[in-house]
Amino acid sequence: MKRDVFFISDRTGITAENLGASLLTQFPNIQFNRTNIPFVTNEKAAQAAVLAIRQSKKNGVEPIVFSTLTDMATQTIIKGSCAHVFDLFGTFVEPLEEALGTESSHKAGRMHGIGDTNAYDKRVHALNFTLGHDDGLSLRNLNDADIVLIGVSRCGKTPTCLYLAMQYSLKAANYPLIQDDLVGSTLPKSLDSCRGKLYGLTIEAEQLSRIRKERRPTGEYSTLSRCQWEIARAEKLFIEEQIPFIDTTTVSIEEMAAIARRDMKLR
Amino acid sequence: MKRDVFFISDRTGITAENLGASLLTQFPNIQFNRTNIPFVTNEKAAQAAVLAIRQSKKNGVEPIVFSTLTDMATQTIIKGSCAHVFDLFGTFVEPLEEALGTESSHKAGRMHGIGDTNAYDKRVHALNFTLGHDDGLSLRNLNDADIVLIGVSRCGKTPTCLYLAMQYSLKAANYPLIQDDLVGSTLPKSLDSCRGKLYGLTIEAEQLSRIRKERRPTGEYSTLSRCQWEIARAEKLFIEEQIPFIDTTTVSIEEMAAIARRDMKLR
Repeated sequence: MKRDVFFISDRTGITAENLGASLLTQFPNIQFNRTNIPFVTNEKAAQAAVLAIRQSKKNGVEPIVFSTLTDMATQTIIKGSCAHVFDLFGTFVEPLEEALGTESSHKAGRMHGIGDTNAYDKRVHALNFTLGHDDGLSLRNLNDADIVLIGVSRCGKTPTCLYLAMQYSLKAANYPLIQDDLVGSTLPKSLDSCRGKLYGLTIEAEQLSRIRKERRPTGEYSTLSRCQWEIARAEKLFIEEQIPFIDTTTVSIEEMAAIARRDMKLR
Repeated sequence: MKRDVFFISDRTGITAENLGASLLTQFPNIQFNRTNIPFVTNEKAAQAAVLAIRQSKKNGVEPIVFSTLTDMATQTIIKGSCAHVFDLFGTFVEPLEEALGTESSHKAGRMHGIGDTNAYDKRVHALNFTLGHDDGLSLRNLNDADIVLIGVSRCGKTPTCLYLAMQYSLKAANYPLIQDDLVGSTLPKSLDSCRGKLYGLTIEAEQLSRIRKERRPTGEYSTLSRCQWEIARAEKLFIEEQIPFIDTTTVSIEEMAAIARRDMKLR
C-alpha cells in the first residue's frame, strides 16, 4: 500500500515539495501517494487540510506531513493533526534567532513573493528576450545576452534558456548549429559579437536520435549516423574554439541551467 | 555590515536558496550577502566551500550556512567549518526513518535529477506545446491544452504559461483578448473547443499602463484610460462567461501558476 504524504504551505508549496521529495528519495522501497495543499493562509484553510489528513488516517496508516507554514497559529493546527508532521520552516527559526542574535518577525515568509517591482520587471524582460532569441530567431542585440547557448538541433537549448530566464532572470539566447556551420567547422560570423558568452551543449547520439524520431520519425534528420556526425562536428568546434560545453544526456533542465550559470560566472 | 550567508548543496542549490531565503525574510532588519555553492558532490568540493566560509570569518562575524547536502562525509566537512550550519536535509532524515519504520538509503538525493526519461519527455513536450501556443500563435490542437490562459495584452499570460509547463509539465496555451473580442463582449469562436480549460488573468490598470509604456512609450495602447477600458471589458467577459480569473497585480509568476493549477484542479 502506498503511504500518503501531504505537502502543506502558505504559498505555492514548491519548496515543501522539492525538499520533501528529496527526503523521500532516501526511501526507495516505499511508494508514496503525494498531495500538495498550497495557500494555507488562514485557520479555515488549515482546518480543511486537517480534514484531508484525517481522511487519510482512516486507511490505518499514519500519513507523513511536510509543512513550510510560517504562521504559528496555522502550524499549530497542522501539528495537532498527525503524529508525523515535519516542520521544514519552524525547525530552523529559533536556532537562526540565536545565530543572528535577534528575534524573528514571525511574519509569513515571502518565498516567491513578487518582491520589488524591479526584480519582477527584470525577470519578465529576461523571459521576453529569451523568447525573442530562441533558436536563432533573431540575431539582433545578441550582444545584450548574458549567455548564448549553441548546439545541434534538439539537444536541450530551449528549455535550458527558458529556465535560466525564469529562475535567474538571465537573458539567454540560443543558436542552433546547422549544416553549414558543421561542415565548415567554423563559428557563424553572426556570433562574433557574443564570442565570450557562448556556451555549448552536447548529447549522446542515441538519445538525440530518439528525441528527433519523436518529432520526425522518418528521414535522415533522426538517423543515428546523422546524429553521430553532427555531434562529432559540434564537439570538435567547441574544442577548437575553446567554448565551454556540457553533455546534457543525463542532466535535468535545472542542473544544466545551474551548471552553465556557474561555468560562465553569471550572478 | 552585511552578514555573509552560504547556500551549499550537491545539486543546483535551488531548494537551499528558496528555503534559506524564506527563513531570512524573518529577519528584515539584517542585510545579507548571499553566496550559492552548488554541486558540492565530493570532499574536494566540500573543502573548497570550507575555504570560502573561512575567508568570510575573517570579517570577524560568523557567517550563516544553509546546507542541503545529502552525503554524510561532505556534510561533516561543512559542519566543522562554522558554528552556524543549518542542515536543511539531514535534520529530518532520522525522524523520517522513525516515522517510516525503515532505514534510509543514505544516497544522494535526486532533487532535480532527470529521473525517468518519460517525465523529462513530458516536460519538454509541455514546453514545446506552450511555446507553439503562445499569444494565440497557433489555434491548432488547442483542445490538447491542459489550460488556456486568456487576458488583455501584457497581463502576465506568457510567463505564467511557461512556468506551468516548466514546473508542472502542463500544456499551457494562451490567447490575448483583442479589440474585437472586447468590443463584442463575446468569446472568440476559436476558443469553443477549449471552453472548460479557460482561465482568466486580470491586472490593475495603473500597473498595466506602466508595463505597456516600457514597450511603447507613446500611443493609445499604453494610456491609463485605454488600459482601464480593456480591463473592465475583459473582467465583464470573464464574469458573464463564468470563467475563473485572478488579479496578477501583486502575485509572483510562481504563485499565479500554482493558483491557476489549484483552481483548475490540474495535477
